[in-house]
Amino acid sequence: CQRPMSNCLMPDLLENLRNIVGAPYVLTAALTDLSAYANDQRRKYYGKPLAVVKPGSPEEVAAIVKLCAQTRTPIVPQAGNTSLCGASVPDGSGTQLILNVSRLNTVREMDVLNNTMTVEAGCILQNLQQAADAVDRLFPVSLGAEGSCQIGGNLSTNAGGVNVLRYGNTREMVLGLEVVLPSGEIWHGLRGLRKDNTGYDLKQLFVGAEGTLGIITAATLKLFPKPKAVQVAFTGLNTTRDVLQFLTHMKSTMGERLTAFEMISAFGIDLVEKQMGHRSPLSQRYPWQVLLEMADSSHAQVLATEMEEALGSAMEAGLILDAAIAKNETESGKLWALRENITEAQAREGRNIKHDVSIPISKIADFVDVADAALEAAYPGVRPVNFGHVGDGNLHYNVAHPEGKFTEAEWMAQWDTVNDIVHGVVRQFNGSISAEHGIGQLKREEIKHYKSALELQMMRLVKDAFDPLGIMNPGKVL
Amino acid sequence: CQRPMSNCLMPDLLENLRNIVGAPYVLTAALTDLSAYANDQRRKYYGKPLAVVKPGSPEEVAAIVKLCAQTRTPIVPQAGNTSLCGASVPDGSGTQLILNVSRLNTVREMDVLNNTMTVEAGCILQNLQQAADAVDRLFPVSLGAEGSCQIGGNLSTNAGGVNVLRYGNTREMVLGLEVVLPSGEIWHGLRGLRKDNTGYDLKQLFVGAEGTLGIITAATLKLFPKPKAVQVAFTGLNTTRDVLQFLTHMKSTMGERLTAFEMISAFGIDLVEKQMGHRSPLSQRYPWQVLLEMADSSHAQVLATEMEEALGSAMEAGLILDAAIAKNETESGKLWALRENITEAQAREGRNIKHDVSIPISKIADFVDVADAALEAAYPGVRPVNFGHVGDGNLHYNVAHPEGKFTEAEWMAQWDTVNDIVHGVVRQFNGSISAEHGIGQLKREEIKHYKSALELQMMRLVKDAFDPLGIMNPGKVL
Repeated sequence: CQRPMSNCLMPDLLENLRNIVGAPYVLTAALTDLSAYANDQRRKYYGKPLAVVKPGSPEEVAAIVKLCAQTRTPIVPQAGNTSLCGASVPDGSGTQLILNVSRLNTVREMDVLNNTMTVEAGCILQNLQQAADAVDRLFPVSLGAEGSCQIGGNLSTNAGGVNVLRYGNTREMVLGLEVVLPSGEIWHGLRGLRKDNTGYDLKQLFVGAEGTLGIITAATLKLFPKPKAVQVAFTGLNTTRDVLQFLTHMKSTMGERLTAFEMISAFGIDLVEKQMGHRSPLSQRYPWQVLLEMADSSHAQVLATEMEEALGSAMEAGLILDAAIAKNETESGKLWALRENITEAQAREGRNIKHDVSIPISKIADFVDVADAALEAAYPGVRPVNFGHVGDGNLHYNVAHPEGKFTEAEWMAQWDTVNDIVHGVVRQFNGSISAEHGIGQLKREEIKHYKSALELQMMRLVKDAFDPLGIMNPGKVL
Repeated sequence: CQRPMSNCLMPDLLENLRNIVGAPYVLTAALTDLSAYANDQRRKYYGKPLAVVKPGSPEEVAAIVKLCAQTRTPIVPQAGNTSLCGASVPDGSGTQLILNVSRLNTVREMDVLNNTMTVEAGCILQNLQQAADAVDRLFPVSLGAEGSCQIGGNLSTNAGGVNVLRYGNTREMVLGLEVVLPSGEIWHGLRGLRKDNTGYDLKQLFVGAEGTLGIITAATLKLFPKPKAVQVAFTGLNTTRDVLQFLTHMKSTMGERLTAFEMISAFGIDLVEKQMGHRSPLSQRYPWQVLLEMADSSHAQVLATEMEEALGSAMEAGLILDAAIAKNETESGKLWALRENITEAQAREGRNIKHDVSIPISKIADFVDVADAALEAAYPGVRPVNFGHVGDGNLHYNVAHPEGKFTEAEWMAQWDTVNDIVHGVVRQFNGSISAEHGIGQLKREEIKHYKSALELQMMRLVKDAFDPLGIMNPGKVL
């Protein structure tokens, strides 16, 4: 072959891929519209893949990875492609192969007595929630994209979501993994044990690694007893300090029954009312609103009584100024809609500059004060849309432009500057600039300013040890 | 210097150590009885250290490790030295330096609003429980050695204990770590965040690594709301299958209020009654006893009512045959004594062969059947003392000799053979041969039969990446 190597090898590579998975599962731009694979959900990254390959078994994944190791072909592992940081799409070089795990979508085992399920990476999150529900169990990972995101992606980004307060992040669900390593070997690490202290906990490396250390093909995940009663309440508060004291009060009186504690600023409620036609159940707008959810395995009446008592004592103590309790599932749904539709309401109001930060919970009030002031100093009239999972210390501190002073394009041009201001305050309070969305491409450069050289070097040590050829999702995380 | 290198360097090394920590904190056998440092708690390993050095700050730890890296001096990190697997004592070569962290015993910060505490590695576990209690919080790690074990050791072995069912292992408590790496650099990874998805979760590598990858000097740990009501019950059951169904029943009715579910065989109760003078509260001996603890932040009366209802429905369903509920703390203490004194009762009856295994919970009944039968076939009349944290799938399946057939010495000589039989059954059910005690020296060779070559190779990759000189706790784990 006299052509440059990449051109020379490519036909062979595609032919070899077809031999592994079958011709229908090797997709190329010549014959198929690859945009659903090549572009990210937020339409920020437009990649150009060499091809998309869709293996039907872990053994096929392993064979593909071996082939890529031999040919030094970069692999972009991809599940539901709902990354918010561009982690699951290729660059524009046309040299990166998307390895899409969607066909690995079998629930291999439901072990009800062990409270575990073993599932393949391409299972859609919502399907897993339903599979657990069908055996009277709860799989608590729940987030906006659950109808299309796949568990392999949730594992690779250590997804958060609305139930972290009570159940932890996706990492906390994982008892075992099956992983195809960058060498093409399969690590059979599927175990259903709550306790296993036999050396390094290797599975932890792959959770949250965004596909840079290997490809998760299956996982054994924890299930939980299904709550028998759920109560939702909506409250109004005066200050962020009150919000934190209220959180402490509710945790100490309700214990683990508190499953969600979501804070929303007045402006956030203004937006969902204006743009989505929702209505706050409270008689007036308060500087801060908190949506609470409580769940329990005991009688609904016991839970309701306990919640009313807890809210009553919070009101007596002056922590909350107003409260509405949902009387049924429909009302609960309406309260949740106030929280869940903020993102959409923001989008309708005009594009805003997004953050996904976490802060020690005790510092959230200070953080909001300092960040609001810093932004106001730089952009008088700026409108932060402050909301998020305060119970986890996680704020989606999004920033809308000062009215009448910026076009959308002008405001978007301020993205990095606004990020710098907000993330600078995050650093001041020892927070994180990516609480639940990961690094991907979006924050790969920025993260270098927030981690010590030593920590980056430790990450590099791990990467080089497991992927010496650098073929696994290059350009992401590190 | 014309002497062999080790002799030549040693005086310099000791002198240099004294310069780092001060002369009183470098202990040598010439002047001090080092047996409390050199020998393990079970008196199975008698080590001979080069010296014992007791640094007073992370910076001193770092300076010691740098010195050891330069001189290739092997380091044995040590906290409370209560390892049950010989992980924290040196070999007999006289070349290994014990680095004891006991002087690093400061609680650096209690952040009540954030529900975290930042503590140094040498803090005694019980002191941390009390420090949390003093601010109306719970630090749930609790185990037999809590009066003398230190948190650095708990972290390094990912300690289990009696509260895992509700709160998880020690790993689940960790939000951040400060670690002196084998290079002598200090990784400042202390963070108090519930969510932080910014790259590999490096802290997970050091938890459970038994000091082979670095020395944990401090940690930021989760605190929990303190339960306001605790209820303890003791029940009698007929079969292991009933025990598992009863566990499922209690979890689904009590949810996370179920904090302990401990199974004890009839022979286990026989032993504590005979050797310790305790009395089961039940009117007769059942094949299996289960001790349950429930805790909650709500009113004691609500919890008591709920527990009575849950036990009542279990009895109606025929899952349990008898139940006693503790009326007060004294009675609760007596019930817990039945469980906690089994180890001591066993020791008084004569030495027995110990195991610390975990099994998928759904397979525990099968495991007990098969393991009992396999042992009976090999040693007719053998007496398994089967007890443990069934709620976590963790059994301390200890084996007493057939009466009248073995001297103690003869039975101890069967240790490896009995281990092989039991661990073979563990493997058959995809269990773990070390649920909560770790590997240390005790199971270092054996583990090679229970992990794939690939998994051992992955562990070696991590070890070589972080400790290329192999100075950190050599001879342990790998």
